[in-house]
Amino acid sequence: MKVISLEDTARTAVDRPGAQNLWKQVPISARDGSPSFSMRVFTVDPDGHTPYHSHASEHLNYVIRGSGALVTESGHEHALKEGDFALVLPHEKHRYRNTSADGPLVIICAVPKEYE
Amino acid sequence: MKVISLEDTARTAVDRPGAQNLWKQVPISARDGSPSFSMRVFTVDPDGHTPYHSHASEHLNYVIRGSGALVTESGHEHALKEGDFALVLPHEKHRYRNTSADGPLVIICAVPKEYE
Repeated sequence: MKVISLEDTARTAVDRPGAQNLWKQVPISARDGSPSFSMRVFTVDPDGHTPYHSHASEHLNYVIRGSGALVTESGHEHALKEGDFALVLPHEKHRYRNTSADGPLVIICAVPKEYE
Repeated sequence: MKVISLEDTARTAVDRPGAQNLWKQVPISARDGSPSFSMRVFTVDPDGHTPYHSHASEHLNYVIRGSGALVTESGHEHALKEGDFALVLPHEKHRYRNTSADGPLVIICAVPKEYE
Protein backbone atom coordinates (compact mmCIF):
# COMPACT_ATOMS: atom_id res chain seq x y z
CA MET A 1 0.00 0.00 0.00
CA LYS A 2 1.28 3.46 -0.87
CA VAL A 3 -0.17 6.94 -0.49
CA ILE A 4 1.61 9.92 -2.03
CA SER A 5 0.48 13.44 -2.83
CA LEU A 6 1.00 14.90 -6.26
CA GLU A 7 2.93 17.81 -4.75
CA ASP A 8 5.41 15.39 -3.15
CA THR A 9 6.01 13.55 -6.44
CA ALA A 10 9.21 14.47 -8.33
CA ARG A 11 8.60 16.53 -11.48
CA THR A 12 10.83 16.43 -14.56
CA ALA A 13 10.76 18.39 -17.81
CA VAL A 14 9.88 16.32 -20.87
CA ASP A 15 12.60 17.01 -23.40
CA ARG A 16 11.78 15.11 -26.57
CA PRO A 17 10.79 16.03 -30.13
CA GLY A 18 7.28 17.44 -30.32
CA ALA A 19 7.01 18.22 -26.62
CA GLN A 20 6.76 21.84 -25.46
CA ASN A 21 6.29 23.35 -21.99
CA LEU A 22 5.65 19.86 -20.68
CA TRP A 23 6.33 18.30 -17.28
CA LYS A 24 5.89 14.75 -16.01
CA GLN A 25 5.34 13.09 -12.62
CA VAL A 26 4.90 9.38 -11.93
CA PRO A 27 3.10 8.89 -8.59
CA ILE A 28 2.45 5.14 -9.12
CA SER A 29 4.24 2.62 -11.32
CA ALA A 30 5.84 -0.83 -11.39
CA ARG A 31 8.58 0.62 -9.17
CA ASP A 32 5.97 0.69 -6.39
CA GLY A 33 4.96 -2.88 -7.15
CA SER A 34 1.94 -1.97 -9.26
CA PRO A 35 1.08 -5.25 -11.01
CA SER A 36 -0.28 -4.05 -14.33
CA PHE A 37 -0.44 -0.29 -14.84
CA SER A 38 0.95 3.11 -13.92
CA MET A 39 -0.41 6.56 -13.24
CA ARG A 40 1.59 9.47 -14.60
CA VAL A 41 0.64 13.15 -14.43
CA PHE A 42 1.47 15.61 -17.19
CA THR A 43 1.44 19.36 -16.66
CA VAL A 44 1.14 21.27 -19.91
CA ASP A 45 1.93 24.95 -19.43
CA PRO A 46 0.38 27.65 -21.67
CA ASP A 47 1.51 27.27 -25.32
CA GLY A 48 2.54 23.72 -24.46
CA HIS A 49 1.69 20.32 -25.88
CA THR A 50 2.72 16.69 -25.89
CA PRO A 51 4.25 15.06 -28.97
CA TYR A 52 1.81 14.24 -31.76
CA HIS A 53 2.26 10.49 -31.73
CA SER A 54 0.77 7.01 -31.53
CA HIS A 55 1.82 3.80 -29.80
CA ALA A 56 0.65 0.28 -29.09
CA SER A 57 -0.62 1.15 -25.57
CA GLU A 58 -3.82 2.90 -24.59
CA HIS A 59 -4.10 6.03 -22.44
CA LEU A 60 -6.75 6.58 -19.77
CA ASN A 61 -6.92 10.22 -18.78
CA TYR A 62 -8.50 12.41 -16.13
CA VAL A 63 -8.26 16.20 -16.23
CA ILE A 64 -7.26 17.45 -12.78
CA ARG A 65 -7.10 21.13 -13.70
CA GLY A 66 -7.16 23.57 -16.58
CA SER A 67 -8.49 23.42 -20.10
CA GLY A 68 -7.08 21.97 -23.27
CA ALA A 69 -7.70 19.75 -26.23
CA LEU A 70 -7.15 16.16 -27.25
CA VAL A 71 -6.16 16.42 -30.92
CA THR A 72 -6.92 13.49 -33.24
CA GLU A 73 -5.18 12.33 -36.42
CA SER A 74 -7.65 14.26 -38.59
CA GLY A 75 -6.95 17.41 -36.61
CA HIS A 76 -10.26 17.34 -34.74
CA GLU A 77 -9.98 18.77 -31.25
CA HIS A 78 -11.93 17.23 -28.38
CA ALA A 79 -12.19 19.96 -25.74
CA LEU A 80 -10.88 18.94 -22.31
CA LYS A 81 -11.81 20.57 -19.04
CA GLU A 82 -11.47 19.77 -15.35
CA GLY A 83 -13.48 16.66 -14.51
CA ASP A 84 -13.26 15.08 -17.97
CA PHE A 85 -12.13 11.52 -18.63
CA ALA A 86 -10.63 10.39 -21.94
CA LEU A 87 -9.72 7.08 -23.54
CA VAL A 88 -7.13 6.96 -26.34
CA LEU A 89 -7.03 3.52 -27.94
CA PRO A 90 -3.84 1.80 -29.11
CA HIS A 91 -2.48 3.23 -32.38
CA GLU A 92 -4.74 6.31 -32.31
CA LYS A 93 -2.55 9.27 -33.18
CA HIS A 94 -3.07 12.07 -30.67
CA ARG A 95 -1.71 15.11 -28.87
CA TYR A 96 -2.75 16.92 -25.71
CA ARG A 97 -2.42 20.67 -25.78
CA ASN A 98 -3.18 23.54 -23.45
CA THR A 99 -5.77 25.93 -24.86
CA SER A 100 -5.77 28.49 -22.05
CA ALA A 101 -3.60 31.59 -21.91
CA ASP A 102 -3.10 31.74 -18.20
CA GLY A 103 -2.95 28.38 -16.45
CA PRO A 104 -1.59 24.86 -16.72
CA LEU A 105 -3.45 21.84 -18.04
CA VAL A 106 -2.87 19.01 -15.55
CA ILE A 107 -3.90 15.49 -16.58
CA ILE A 108 -3.57 11.96 -15.28
CA CYS A 109 -2.34 9.60 -17.99
CA ALA A 110 -2.66 5.95 -16.96
CA VAL A 111 -0.86 3.34 -19.06
CA PRO A 112 0.08 -0.35 -18.93
CA LYS A 113 3.24 -0.73 -16.84
CA GLU A 114 5.11 -2.03 -19.89
CA TYR A 115 4.76 1.44 -21.44
CA GLU A 116 6.12 3.16 -18.33
CA MET B 1 -11.25 7.75 -28.61
CA LYS B 2 -13.78 8.86 -26.03
CA VAL B 3 -14.15 11.99 -23.90
CA ILE B 4 -16.80 12.14 -21.17
CA SER B 5 -17.25 14.41 -18.18
CA LEU B 6 -17.78 12.98 -14.73
CA GLU B 7 -21.03 14.93 -14.40
CA ASP B 8 -22.38 13.26 -17.56
CA THR B 9 -21.54 9.75 -16.28
CA ALA B 10 -24.42 7.74 -14.81
CA ARG B 11 -24.28 7.37 -11.03
CA THR B 12 -25.67 4.40 -9.11
CA ALA B 13 -25.95 3.67 -5.40
CA VAL B 14 -23.72 0.83 -4.19
CA ASP B 15 -25.99 -1.51 -2.28
CA ARG B 16 -23.88 -4.34 -0.89
CA PRO B 17 -22.84 -5.52 2.58
CA GLY B 18 -20.34 -3.16 4.19
CA ALA B 19 -21.08 -0.23 1.89
CA GLN B 20 -22.68 2.91 3.30
CA ASN B 21 -23.53 6.25 1.65
CA LEU B 22 -21.62 5.11 -1.41
CA TRP B 23 -22.10 5.93 -5.10
CA LYS B 24 -20.36 4.62 -8.21
CA GLN B 25 -19.69 5.91 -11.73
CA VAL B 26 -17.76 4.15 -14.50
CA PRO B 27 -16.51 6.72 -17.04
CA ILE B 28 -14.16 4.29 -18.86
CA SER B 29 -14.23 0.49 -19.06
CA ALA B 30 -14.08 -2.48 -21.42
CA ARG B 31 -17.51 -1.40 -22.68
CA ASP B 32 -15.73 1.54 -24.32
CA GLY B 33 -13.11 -0.76 -25.80
CA SER B 34 -10.51 -0.13 -23.09
CA PRO B 35 -7.98 -2.95 -23.66
CA SER B 36 -6.76 -3.61 -20.14
CA PHE B 37 -8.21 -1.46 -17.37
CA SER B 38 -11.13 0.67 -16.21
CA MET B 39 -11.60 3.93 -14.34
CA ARG B 40 -14.42 4.04 -11.82
CA VAL B 41 -15.27 6.94 -9.51
CA PHE B 42 -16.65 6.43 -6.01
CA THR B 43 -18.40 9.18 -4.08
CA VAL B 44 -18.44 8.53 -0.35
CA ASP B 45 -20.87 10.84 1.43
CA PRO B 46 -20.34 11.88 5.08
CA ASP B 47 -20.53 8.86 7.45
CA GLY B 48 -19.99 6.65 4.41
CA HIS B 49 -17.48 3.96 3.54
CA THR B 50 -16.74 1.15 1.10
CA PRO B 51 -16.85 -2.51 2.19
CA TYR B 52 -13.85 -3.66 4.20
CA HIS B 53 -12.56 -6.26 1.78
CA SER B 54 -9.72 -7.66 -0.30
CA HIS B 55 -9.49 -9.14 -3.78
CA ALA B 56 -7.01 -10.43 -6.32
CA SER B 57 -6.88 -7.13 -8.24
CA GLU B 58 -5.04 -3.96 -7.37
CA HIS B 59 -6.56 -0.48 -7.01
CA LEU B 60 -4.92 2.71 -8.25
CA ASN B 61 -6.59 5.75 -6.72
CA TYR B 62 -6.64 9.50 -7.11
CA VAL B 63 -8.53 11.77 -4.71
CA ILE B 64 -10.55 14.26 -6.76
CA ARG B 65 -12.19 15.98 -3.80
CA GLY B 66 -12.73 15.80 -0.06
CA SER B 67 -10.91 14.11 2.75
CA GLY B 68 -10.95 10.58 4.05
CA ALA B 69 -8.91 7.59 5.04
CA LEU B 70 -7.61 4.40 3.50
CA VAL B 71 -7.98 1.85 6.28
CA THR B 72 -5.61 -1.15 6.37
CA GLU B 73 -6.06 -4.65 7.76
CA SER B 74 -4.38 -3.64 11.04
CA GLY B 75 -6.75 -0.71 11.39
CA HIS B 76 -4.14 1.89 10.47
CA GLU B 77 -5.62 4.86 8.65
CA HIS B 78 -3.68 6.54 5.84
CA ALA B 79 -5.14 10.04 5.56
CA LEU B 80 -6.43 10.93 2.09
CA LYS B 81 -6.90 14.44 0.74
CA GLU B 82 -7.47 16.05 -2.64
CA GLY B 83 -4.45 15.48 -4.87
CA ASP B 84 -3.35 12.21 -3.24
CA PHE B 85 -2.62 9.01 -5.14
CA ALA B 86 -2.86 5.55 -3.57
CA LEU B 87 -1.92 2.04 -4.56
CA VAL B 88 -3.66 -0.94 -2.94
CA LEU B 89 -1.93 -4.19 -3.87
CA PRO B 90 -3.75 -7.46 -4.60
CA HIS B 91 -5.03 -9.19 -1.43
CA GLU B 92 -4.43 -6.15 0.81
CA LYS B 93 -7.54 -5.77 2.94
CA HIS B 94 -8.77 -2.18 2.85
CA ARG B 95 -11.64 0.27 3.14
CA TYR B 96 -12.07 3.87 2.03
CA ARG B 97 -14.04 6.09 4.37
CA ASN B 98 -15.06 9.72 4.49
CA THR B 99 -13.62 11.56 7.50
CA SER B 100 -15.25 14.93 6.94
CA ALA B 101 -18.57 16.03 8.38
CA ASP B 102 -19.71 18.22 5.56
CA GLY B 103 -18.61 17.07 2.12
CA PRO B 104 -18.20 14.03 -0.11
CA LEU B 105 -14.98 12.11 -0.66
CA VAL B 106 -14.64 11.57 -4.41
CA ILE B 107 -11.98 9.14 -5.64
CA ILE B 108 -10.91 7.55 -8.89
CA CYS B 109 -10.47 3.79 -8.48
CA ALA B 110 -8.73 2.23 -11.49
CA VAL B 111 -8.76 -1.56 -11.82
CA PRO B 112 -7.96 -4.26 -14.37
CA LYS B 113 -10.90 -4.63 -16.75
CA GLU B 114 -11.47 -8.20 -15.55
CA TYR B 115 -12.43 -6.78 -12.14
CA GLU B 116 -14.92 -4.35 -13.69
